[in-house]
Amino acid sequence: MSSERFEATYEIESPVGLERAAAVIAGEQSTGTFVRLASETDALRDRAAARVESIEKTGTSSTPSLPCRLTGDSYQRGIVRLSWPVANIGPSLPNLMATIAGNLFELAEVSAIRLIDLHVPKSFASALPGPAHGVDGTRALIGVPDGPMIGTIIKPSIGLTVEDTAALVDTLVSSGIDFIKDDELQSSGPESTLENRAKAVMEVVNSHADKTGRKVMYAFNITGEIDEMARRADLLESLGATCAMISLNWVGLSGIRFLRDRCALPIHGHRNGWGLMSRSPHIGISYPVQQMVWRLAGADHLHVNGLANKFTETDDVVREAALAVQAEIPGTSRAALPVFSSGQTVWQIGECGTFLGSQDFLYCAGGGIISHPDGPAAGVSALREAAEAAKHGVPIETWAKDRAALSKALQSFKRPDATALASDAQPS
Amino acid sequence: MSSERFEATYEIESPVGLERAAAVIAGEQSTGTFVRLASETDALRDRAAARVESIEKTGTSSTPSLPCRLTGDSYQRGIVRLSWPVANIGPSLPNLMATIAGNLFELAEVSAIRLIDLHVPKSFASALPGPAHGVDGTRALIGVPDGPMIGTIIKPSIGLTVEDTAALVDTLVSSGIDFIKDDELQSSGPESTLENRAKAVMEVVNSHADKTGRKVMYAFNITGEIDEMARRADLLESLGATCAMISLNWVGLSGIRFLRDRCALPIHGHRNGWGLMSRSPHIGISYPVQQMVWRLAGADHLHVNGLANKFTETDDVVREAALAVQAEIPGTSRAALPVFSSGQTVWQIGECGTFLGSQDFLYCAGGGIISHPDGPAAGVSALREAAEAAKHGVPIETWAKDRAALSKALQSFKRPDATALASDAQPS
Repeated sequence: MSSERFEATYEIESPVGLERAAAVIAGEQSTGTFVRLASETDALRDRAAARVESIEKTGTSSTPSLPCRLTGDSYQRGIVRLSWPVANIGPSLPNLMATIAGNLFELAEVSAIRLIDLHVPKSFASALPGPAHGVDGTRALIGVPDGPMIGTIIKPSIGLTVEDTAALVDTLVSSGIDFIKDDELQSSGPESTLENRAKAVMEVVNSHADKTGRKVMYAFNITGEIDEMARRADLLESLGATCAMISLNWVGLSGIRFLRDRCALPIHGHRNGWGLMSRSPHIGISYPVQQMVWRLAGADHLHVNGLANKFTETDDVVREAALAVQAEIPGTSRAALPVFSSGQTVWQIGECGTFLGSQDFLYCAGGGIISHPDGPAAGVSALREAAEAAKHGVPIETWAKDRAALSKALQSFKRPDATALASDAQPS
Repeated sequence: MSSERFEATYEIESPVGLERAAAVIAGEQSTGTFVRLASETDALRDRAAARVESIEKTGTSSTPSLPCRLTGDSYQRGIVRLSWPVANIGPSLPNLMATIAGNLFELAEVSAIRLIDLHVPKSFASALPGPAHGVDGTRALIGVPDGPMIGTIIKPSIGLTVEDTAALVDTLVSSGIDFIKDDELQSSGPESTLENRAKAVMEVVNSHADKTGRKVMYAFNITGEIDEMARRADLLESLGATCAMISLNWVGLSGIRFLRDRCALPIHGHRNGWGLMSRSPHIGISYPVQQMVWRLAGADHLHVNGLANKFTETDDVVREAALAVQAEIPGTSRAALPVFSSGQTVWQIGECGTFLGSQDFLYCAGGGIISHPDGPAAGVSALREAAEAAKHGVPIETWAKDRAALSKALQSFKRPDATALASDAQPS
């Protein structure tokens, strides 16, 4: 492994030219400093220096996109690819990020910088755990051998008593749903501790499972300190729960990996705070990079927003995110499960399967299930019927003719703009 | 504590007006969803809803600062302050962040959003550990009762063998320095494992300490998985080391807290990746907020960049950051130690003490020490003399007259632009 390298690609803009900017990033993030030291010998550089692998100019701007101490006559834009020896850090994700996403976003030699691609050698990926369950493991736990898995989120997000939550879960489980999750705002406040909530909810879930032979997966939000998460994971396992959810950004890479090693349950990875990394076109990290790091650390389920969502990500970005989550990472044994949510109804589910080329996804709808005119069971049925229509290549309105649940859903829920519903459309 | 609330303040821009945008953030981040549910009762809202505390309009823009699905005739800019019941989450930092910095940066109702202030009740802060050592604990371990602590960073950042590192440490310790740190790129790759490096370095440090009675603090970068960090912290303690460094963003809040609970050493908090949160004027988190969260989790030392640094933060931002790190958080017993670094020489150290109103800081210089024409010992002496000059209110050039080390440093190192060197200056 000693000669192997990992590679990161950046979209940058620079007041000093792409070549100079790429060299500064490479120097700052490996053997260089602002003055060349005698101890930066050729042998040391051979061993540890980052290398500029390629530079592609894509355009020029007359003004800097971000505040920048250095100024230029113009600001070159382009794509630069850098590589580092794996031996600088070994297969360590927190140290990978310190190298490829560390003290480089504030460099004066760039006036915009986004980390857009990452490749690690097979030996690096295979030294990390990756998801323990992924798609197949999740399907096996829920008992859904094919088709998309249908889920929902407990709402209101926060404020329900434990008893109210359990009562709502009873209604939802009765609807034939596959998956239910805590909202990311619902952690373990004094009014609804994780302990009390898990006991009450699992009593309901287990009681239904005893009757039906199929156990709904409930993702409990165990986000907290390391020792708290360990205790909560143990409790979930002892109660027969089948999923633990965490806020990936705040638990951190070391926290995700801890849970992966400590807990036998699938890890439902919630990306709240992701907008910080993704919304600006001038600074940030792309989801194909971020999801790879989270997956290698052990996340089984990864949120990707939804087509025609209520936030600001375009459908193109959502498609790229979901495809990345299900793509193979050489050296790992399984992909993660993409989770669609945010304003999702019968209108988008078919297209999710179409553009993914697979039914291996979790589709979370809130209002899209609970607000169905014939109740949540009809809401769940309508979503399954909508997915079937797309799988058979039949227009959803045609498929709905003999299917009351789908038919009423199509009348009840507003059809989003057409861009989200056709694979070949180019959202603005 | 049940009626107590935490408050977050945002600088926002909105296509739908500040009132509407603030209401959407409050709803999304507490009891609301995109349709009002019957179960969102008044009692539930009283218990758990976020509240808009104040709205201050500061301006209007004709175009959105960030890509935004919603458009408006104009985009109002202003400051909105929201509060949440502590009982929603209890005193949990990862869940605090999921609430105040979660799914809100991508809302279509804002075309720019920065989290700029945070207040937590005393009871919330006092339920968290905070720094175990802070300023006084660090001074006691190093044996520097007053004046700034002088430090440096091993360079080249990465690629030195363990033997080369130990030899450089020998030179640096002989110079009379107080503090040395691994670069954040130097973690535990196969060429310089933490274990081998710590043994070799501590042999040098301990050997000097045996002779001088004063032990230089070396901050070893133990960034890694939870179990690795635990083992490494144990090793450091067994070797007589006095500081552990971590990459705060990648270890995560749960990881920082783990180390605070597990390890008796001061935690040197490295903020690499911080540019992601700070560089855009349109999206991000301010350092006064971020440092508070890191401090409450247990970081003892926090990087704040440097005056006239080589990056793009202005001196105003650096001053605000350092003042925040040393400010009291009600409910906690000690502040953290601000760490200045990045292109620091004799020219900036005096002003650091002046604007802080205190000599309680760690001043890290690389070239500013090692490149002194009379060697590193003269480099360290020159920095101490420069700090003394400012403390006595004497111009640095006057103070240098009878002091060879300072005098030669002033000739050798380029004076930065005047803005960094005067408290009342307004950097552009």
